[in-house]
Amino acid sequence: MKIRPLGDRVVIKRLEAEETTKSGIVLPGAAKEKPQQAEVIAVGPGGVVNDKEIKMEVKVGDKVLFSKYAGNEVKIDSEEYIILRQDDILGVLE
Amino acid sequence: MKIRPLGDRVVIKRLEAEETTKSGIVLPGAAKEKPQQAEVIAVGPGGVVNDKEIKMEVKVGDKVLFSKYAGNEVKIDSEEYIILRQDDILGVLE
Amino acid sequence: MKIRPLGDRVVIKRLEAEETTKSGIVLPGAAKEKPQQAEVIAVGPGGVVNDKEIKMEVKVGDKVLFSKYAGNEVKIDSEEYIILRQDDILGVLE
Amino acid sequence: MKIRPLGDRVVIKRLEAEETTKSGIVLPGAAKEKPQQAEVIAVGPGGVVNDKEIKMEVKVGDKVLFSKYAGNEVKIDSEEYIILRQDDILGVLE
Amino acid sequence: MKIRPLGDRVVIKRLEAEETTKSGIVLPGAAKEKPQQAEVIAVGPGGVVNDKEIKMEVKVGDKVLFSKYAGNEVKIDSEEYIILRQDDILGVLE
Amino acid sequence: MKIRPLGDRVVIKRLEAEETTKSGIVLPGAAKEKPQQAEVIAVGPGGVVNDKEIKMEVKVGDKVLFSKYAGNEVKIDSEEYIILRQDDILGVLE
Amino acid sequence: MKIRPLGDRVVIKRLEAEETTKSGIVLPGAAKEKPQQAEVIAVGPGGVVNDKEIKMEVKVGDKVLFSKYAGNEVKIDSEEYIILRQDDILGVLE
Repeated sequence: MKIRPLGDRVVIKRLEAEETTKSGIVLPGAAKEKPQQAEVIAVGPGGVVNDKEIKMEVKVGDKVLFSKYAGNEVKIDSEEYIILRQDDILGVLE
Repeated sequence: MKIRPLGDRVVIKRLEAEETTKSGIVLPGAAKEKPQQAEVIAVGPGGVVNDKEIKMEVKVGDKVLFSKYAGNEVKIDSEEYIILRQDDILGVLE
Repeated sequence: MKIRPLGDRVVIKRLEAEETTKSGIVLPGAAKEKPQQAEVIAVGPGGVVNDKEIKMEVKVGDKVLFSKYAGNEVKIDSEEYIILRQDDILGVLE
Repeated sequence: MKIRPLGDRVVIKRLEAEETTKSGIVLPGAAKEKPQQAEVIAVGPGGVVNDKEIKMEVKVGDKVLFSKYAGNEVKIDSEEYIILRQDDILGVLE
Repeated sequence: MKIRPLGDRVVIKRLEAEETTKSGIVLPGAAKEKPQQAEVIAVGPGGVVNDKEIKMEVKVGDKVLFSKYAGNEVKIDSEEYIILRQDDILGVLE
Repeated sequence: MKIRPLGDRVVIKRLEAEETTKSGIVLPGAAKEKPQQAEVIAVGPGGVVNDKEIKMEVKVGDKVLFSKYAGNEVKIDSEEYIILRQDDILGVLE
Repeated sequence: MKIRPLGDRVVIKRLEAEETTKSGIVLPGAAKEKPQQAEVIAVGPGGVVNDKEIKMEVKVGDKVLFSKYAGNEVKIDSEEYIILRQDDILGVLE
């Protein structure tokens, strides 16, 4: 069972932060208002959303940083996902 | 008796979450701010709503995820429905 | 004495909810934030309201559902009416 | 001494509600958030207000219903008036 | 020393309300949210303000009514003035 | 070291108010919500800011009045400056 | 590992304020609502963001001043960065 996000929405799956790895990203889970790392699972079609032309800039498999409290959490097949608008994604990790 | 939603509104009927099924969607009912699963019952015509051109992307029978507190609840012929704007629908389950 | 609503406003008259009828609409009066049933009494001309082109989609005699706290109540000739914007009408009952 | 309202503003004078007349409008003065009855005293020129083209739809002498807390009260020559935007006028009584 | 207001701003000087004069305007100073009477001292050039085309409709010397809490107070050469946007002026007294 | 403000921002330096001078501007420092006097130190290029065409109307050296709580304070080379948007400047003193 | 910011976002790295240097910038760390000094690490592509055409005006290596509470903090490879919108950058130090 899959989620097809509408408009400018993106489905992401949170990555567990590696808290002590030297070359890894350190994101203390309890910190407030901090962005978090996730993998993109599904991307909406974009297009005209609220009369604004939205072009999707992320793709499935991208590692992204997002605002902690953005979006809605949902659990499907025992897996937790977050559905948010692309605008709540801060950047792509490369 | 049926509801014909106006503009970009959609009538949905909440689906009971199967809380333990392996391949089902797990949506704890008491969880706050979590999206929920529903079936689309009726879809407004879209068109120009608040001066924005809205194209309806869901259709009757679609299983959708929506923000828990979005929309208005209404009971018709002893059945409970929710009327919300299409923008409050997060994604379609496939 | 009649009310001629301006712009996109609509005058409606609340219908008493039939609380136990099988085929009627059940709308518990004390429930908060729930939509309510009403009959359309008068419809504004629509047109350009706040620089938005509004086309009126309801007509006199329509049974409609509306957000409980939307609009303003007014009593004329001992009858209570509600004046609200068409956008606060959720759907038409058919 | 007269007030010439600017833009889309309208000067109105509150009418005392006839509280028990059968064919009159009953507007309990103490009720909150309820519209009130008034007579239009002066009408602004309309035109472009905040970049929106506003066409004035009320004229001097009209009996109107308005949102109770809309606008600003002002006393001129011992008479109390209210200056509000046309959009705060709900409808015209006919 | 003079103030040249920018954009759609207007400099006004509060007029003391004549509280008992029959033909004067009565504006109790302590009343809240009530408009007040003032004389226009300087008028900004208008033009495009926040991407809106603003045409100045008041001129130096006009007696105007304004929302009590609008604008900013400033004291120059021991005289108190108020600088507000033209939109906070309710009407001109004639 | 200098600050080059972006967009419609302006760097100003607060002028000490001469509190008793007859012909000076009197701005009690502790008064709340009152505008203040400052000298313009640097002016952004203006242009399109948030999709609005902003034309800069103040220039370096201008004495201006500004809303007390507008903008951000910054200390450079032991001097305190304020960086604010041009729209927070109320007027120019001449 | 690098962050590629989306749209009008910018990745910056806070510079420690030199608190006593005569010719340095003094930014007391505990002061509230004060801008802060940082170096630009990565710049988004700009373009159409929320239907607004955004042209990026800062470049990698720029020393900038920014609003203290703007943006989101993120730690990558043990280094702390801030991701904010270009509009939260007040000015460039030269």
